[in-house]
Amino acid sequence: MDYEIYDLGNVTLQGGATIRDCKLAYKTFGTLNAAKDNAIVYPTWYSGQHDANEWLVGPGMALDPAKYFIIIPNMLGNGLSSSPSNTPEPYNGPRFPNVTAYDNVKVQHRLVTEKFGISKLPLVTGWSMGALQTFHWGAMFPDMVERIAPFCGSAKCSRHNFVFLEGVKAALTADAAFKGGWYDTKPAIGLRAMARVYAGWGFSQDFYRAELDIKTLGFSSLEDFLVAFWEGFFLPKDANNLLTMLWTWQRGDISANEIYGGDFVKALGAIKAKAYVMPGATDLYFPPADSEFEVAHMPNAKFIPIPSIWGHFAGGPGTNPVDVKFLDDKLKELLAS
Amino acid sequence: MDYEIYDLGNVTLQGGATIRDCKLAYKTFGTLNAAKDNAIVYPTWYSGQHDANEWLVGPGMALDPAKYFIIIPNMLGNGLSSSPSNTPEPYNGPRFPNVTAYDNVKVQHRLVTEKFGISKLPLVTGWSMGALQTFHWGAMFPDMVERIAPFCGSAKCSRHNFVFLEGVKAALTADAAFKGGWYDTKPAIGLRAMARVYAGWGFSQDFYRAELDIKTLGFSSLEDFLVAFWEGFFLPKDANNLLTMLWTWQRGDISANEIYGGDFVKALGAIKAKAYVMPGATDLYFPPADSEFEVAHMPNAKFIPIPSIWGHFAGGPGTNPVDVKFLDDKLKELLAS
Repeated sequence: MDYEIYDLGNVTLQGGATIRDCKLAYKTFGTLNAAKDNAIVYPTWYSGQHDANEWLVGPGMALDPAKYFIIIPNMLGNGLSSSPSNTPEPYNGPRFPNVTAYDNVKVQHRLVTEKFGISKLPLVTGWSMGALQTFHWGAMFPDMVERIAPFCGSAKCSRHNFVFLEGVKAALTADAAFKGGWYDTKPAIGLRAMARVYAGWGFSQDFYRAELDIKTLGFSSLEDFLVAFWEGFFLPKDANNLLTMLWTWQRGDISANEIYGGDFVKALGAIKAKAYVMPGATDLYFPPADSEFEVAHMPNAKFIPIPSIWGHFAGGPGTNPVDVKFLDDKLKELLAS
Repeated sequence: MDYEIYDLGNVTLQGGATIRDCKLAYKTFGTLNAAKDNAIVYPTWYSGQHDANEWLVGPGMALDPAKYFIIIPNMLGNGLSSSPSNTPEPYNGPRFPNVTAYDNVKVQHRLVTEKFGISKLPLVTGWSMGALQTFHWGAMFPDMVERIAPFCGSAKCSRHNFVFLEGVKAALTADAAFKGGWYDTKPAIGLRAMARVYAGWGFSQDFYRAELDIKTLGFSSLEDFLVAFWEGFFLPKDANNLLTMLWTWQRGDISANEIYGGDFVKALGAIKAKAYVMPGATDLYFPPADSEFEVAHMPNAKFIPIPSIWGHFAGGPGTNPVDVKFLDDKLKELLAS
């Protein structure tokens, strides 16, 4: 096991359910300094676990363990933190409660403060749903978070993004083997269908036109890319876990809580952190226009699109070295400021 | 019955199968003049039938029945022309053969020449897969077609478009009730899943951001739009028919025939017709960049994006009056030239 567990005890969620004996799985890199002011929080993305974040951490990189104490908390529902797949009865499987990004960041905040005694964070950053959690950190703890760098993500799930996810969900659950979440063997047809739906969204039209799946990623054909990359990606994952995280994503909204009462512009305005908001220029489900709106309502934010034809994958997970370099440079610039 | 049937007899397809007693359903508007030089061919789109094309036909419009003889041929597989749903054994249901756009235009050409004795067409036009057939008319019969106006479509299915359709197909067929096409009752869960997948593609991010589903189209909520518009659209349709047309779409390519032997640029270059190629500026599956490539390789073509946030629906089916006016004006301009 290459990660730690923080025992949260009983966690009552925004929706009213309580996860008893709730677990937060996390991994750290580097050492927390004596002043406790060198920690970076770097949450995970949809279906990813901490190891799928490590491409942005390393010697000489912005997230250098020699300099920073980097904490990667696993999202609730991702199979390592409390999830449908690892929670005992009666809250197991499809009975696992709905979890919001707010709930996630609240337990992450407990880890950071209770376990490590940290009161200032020089940076929170993340890709995709990691960006959603990054925005939440900025809005929920404006006096604690000095910088945020959300990339290829948003502070609120857009209506279009919601619809895209409805398609993903419908494809997964159309498989009779899903059985309303009470499957014994995994709903493989649904997972494969979901993967094929996702394939059109994950990379851009330009990416496919340039045949980067073959020419850069080395797959032998488009169909090979769909099977080996996409189906291969989703098949090992638990369907209920995927649906839990999908629900979290669809309801993502930094203002959907008692602090901001649904006032999205107010919540954006409350983010004091110096922010680099970095959408992928060709991202089909987090289009730059949504980031521009966010930046326009944040007091200390810069809009920095990633000039890439890799669509959503401009931001991860380390798939394209050119984009990684761009992101890493921007993170260095932000951390130095 | 508001349409006619042209009996094609036995039609041997590109793929080698023969549809015996093949039927081409069509509807006409207006009167063919004595010179037989006032006919416009206006093919149907994915899952649409001739009545779903009529929004672009009318008095005072470019396609004015007082002036032109407008022929709307129904695509093979669309439920009116020979299709999985109406073909007798043994070629019924999932055994209905694969049909290409080339096959479609070949039988349409027979209707136009054999039945009506037409040798010149002032215009061929169409939306989406109708645009695909329009391009085929231009490439297959360059001396016959004087003008083409393909809108929100392409001369060749792009790799990204292919992937989008893989997602649609996977969602539909994930339903166990589909039974490999041998269903007795329709696979409603699959049809609904397919509809939800399609919903994210059909309209643009900007459309959903502006809430035009509610504010302009009058649906009561986003979920109401997904159920009433999208699921309501696909549920009445036959799954095998949808898959036949989807196959046609995915293999669409004006050069995939004995004339051009797969040389796409050569096929584009052979289109003599004066062409207005009109993509939707925010179309997610026929992005303008593909149209630009086509126009760059056509000798007599103009690239005219439809300035609209309605995504693919900028081109039909009459959903947005502003876009209809734009299209109609351009068709008038093209016909007058």
